[in-house]
Amino acid sequence: MSAPIRLAVIGMGKIAHDQHLPAIAADPDFQLVATVSRHGGPVDDLPFFPNIEALIESGLAVDAVALCTPPQVRRAIAATALAQGWHVFLEKPPGATLAEVVTLEEAARATGASLFASWHSRYAKGVEPARAWLADRRIDSATVTWREDVRVWHPGQEWIWAAGGFGVFDPGINALSIVTRILPRPFFLTEAALDVPSNRQAPIAARLQFRDTAGVAIAADFDFRQEGPQHWDIVVETDRGPLRLADGGATLTLPDGSVPTAAEGLHGEYPGLYARFAAVIRAGTSDVDVAPLRHVADAFLLGHRNLVEPFVE
Amino acid sequence: MSAPIRLAVIGMGKIAHDQHLPAIAADPDFQLVATVSRHGGPVDDLPFFPNIEALIESGLAVDAVALCTPPQVRRAIAATALAQGWHVFLEKPPGATLAEVVTLEEAARATGASLFASWHSRYAKGVEPARAWLADRRIDSATVTWREDVRVWHPGQEWIWAAGGFGVFDPGINALSIVTRILPRPFFLTEAALDVPSNRQAPIAARLQFRDTAGVAIAADFDFRQEGPQHWDIVVETDRGPLRLADGGATLTLPDGSVPTAAEGLHGEYPGLYARFAAVIRAGTSDVDVAPLRHVADAFLLGHRNLVEPFVE
Repeated sequence: MSAPIRLAVIGMGKIAHDQHLPAIAADPDFQLVATVSRHGGPVDDLPFFPNIEALIESGLAVDAVALCTPPQVRRAIAATALAQGWHVFLEKPPGATLAEVVTLEEAARATGASLFASWHSRYAKGVEPARAWLADRRIDSATVTWREDVRVWHPGQEWIWAAGGFGVFDPGINALSIVTRILPRPFFLTEAALDVPSNRQAPIAARLQFRDTAGVAIAADFDFRQEGPQHWDIVVETDRGPLRLADGGATLTLPDGSVPTAAEGLHGEYPGLYARFAAVIRAGTSDVDVAPLRHVADAFLLGHRNLVEPFVE
Repeated sequence: MSAPIRLAVIGMGKIAHDQHLPAIAADPDFQLVATVSRHGGPVDDLPFFPNIEALIESGLAVDAVALCTPPQVRRAIAATALAQGWHVFLEKPPGATLAEVVTLEEAARATGASLFASWHSRYAKGVEPARAWLADRRIDSATVTWREDVRVWHPGQEWIWAAGGFGVFDPGINALSIVTRILPRPFFLTEAALDVPSNRQAPIAARLQFRDTAGVAIAADFDFRQEGPQHWDIVVETDRGPLRLADGGATLTLPDGSVPTAAEGLHGEYPGLYARFAAVIRAGTSDVDVAPLRHVADAFLLGHRNLVEPFVE
C-alpha cells in the first residue's frame, strides 16, 4: 500500500464535520493534516488556517484538498489548489456554472493533478446494484419522485432561494446524479415546468420530461412542499417488472421482491466517495461527470416558469 | 480535388434560402442533391421530400445534410441522419439543450460521421484577424454591446419569447460565439441579471459579468429594446489600446486605426461555414464547440430575473 494521501479539508461547515471527517478518519488511504475555514478553530489539534493562501504559505506538505465551501467561492479555491499541483475533491454541485467546471478540468490537465467532482448519492447502497441489474434489461420508462419538506430539511437556508441557489434542484440534482448513473443510455430534457414562488428566484417545484437515445420516457417530479411522508424514489419499468430504488438510493427492491445487498467494502456514501477519490489519485486521472449539473442548467434554459404563491418560512 | 459532397438541405425556411443555398451553389466542394421541408416545393427541379424518412426511403445517394429547422425538432432529425452515416451541419444553436448535443456527439463518434455545430458569426470578416491579433496581447477587459430592436429584426417571432426560445440570447449567443473565439483564455459567468417581460418567458435584456481564468473582467449588455442606432460591438482593452469589432464581427479596427483585411478565400459567414464543414468532413473529424450555448444555459441557471413591463409587439 502506498503512503497515505495528505489531505486538508477546506470549509468546515456541517457537511465537513458530519460526513467528511468521519469518512477520512476511517480511510487508511488518507491522513488529515490540516483544516481551513474562515470561522471556527482547529480540529484534533491539527494545523488550522483561515484560508488556502495561509495553508500554502505555511509550507505544510499537502497532497490533496477536499472543498466543502459553498459553490460561489469554490472555483477560486479549487483553481488555487490545482495550481499547487494538489488533487481536488469538489463537493456537489461541482460549480455554480458549467463553464467554471470546464476551466477546472483544464487546470487539472495542465498540472497533472486529479480533479474529482463528487456526487454523494451515487454512493448510496442501492445504486451500483441497480446499475448492474439494469444493464441487461429492456427499459420501458423511469419515474423519479423527489418530494421533501423544505422547512424540515433546509431551515433558514436563504441562499437556496436566491438566483443560482437551485431551489428544489438542490436535492433534485442528487436524483439526477443517480438516474444518470443507473440508466444505460444518455438522456436529454424535452419539457420542463418550474414553479417559482412570486417572492423568490429559485423554483420550489419542477416537473421534467426526458427521453433517452432509444426514445424511453423519463419523468421527474421534484417538490419542496411535501408534508407528511417524504419521498426520494426512483422506479424503472423493465421487461422483468419494476425496479424500485427508495430512500435516496439506499434501498433497492427488484421485481421479485428481493433486496440485493451492496458489494463488499462499500459502507456508505462518504466512505464510498473517499475510496473513489483515492483510486482516482492513485490512477493519475480525474473523474468529472457534469451530466447532473448539465441537466439542471438545461431545465433552467428550457423550463416554463409558473409563478406560484409566495414562500415564507 | 475529391468528388463533391452530395448534400441535402433540411428545413427550407428563410435562412436556408437566403444563406445556405447561395453558399452551397458557390462552393465546388458541395453538390446540392435534394431539399427536404414540411412546406413548399422543389428547388431548381431537384428531388424534394417532405421529411428525412422519405429522403432515406428514396435511396438517393446523400453524403451530408444541413439542418436549418427550428432547434425543437433538430435533434431527432440529426440523430436519424447520423444513423445513416451522413455528415450533419447544425444551424445555431446546436440544440435546445446541452444534453441533446452530447447525444449527437456520441452518435457521430459511433457512426464515424462528421458533426458540425455551426456558429455563423465566427465567420464574420473581422473575427479571425481579431483572434490572431489578441493572441499575443495583454488583455485588460472586454465589453460586449449587443443592442437591437426586436420589432425590426424578429417581427412576429412568437417562439423567441416562449420557454426555450432564448429571448435576447437568440442574437446574444452570436456575440458569445465571437467572444469565445477571439479571447485567448476560457471564461465563466459570475453574475447575471435578466429582464423578463411580465407577459413572456424569455428575457428581453440581459447584463452579464464574466471572468477569464486570469481574472480579466468581461461584461456583456444584451438588449432587445434598442431603438435608433443598432449596436453589435465588442471592445477589448489591451496593453496596446482598444481593439474594436463592430457590425457583428464584420468590421475590425485596431488601436492604431488600421482595418485589417480578411485572409484570402473567406468571403462571408455562410461561405466560411461551408468551407469549414467540407474541411471537417474531409478530415474525418467533428467540430462541436458548445461553449456559447453553455454560457447561455449558465446565464439562465445563475441569472437574477427582474420582471419588467409587458412586451407587446
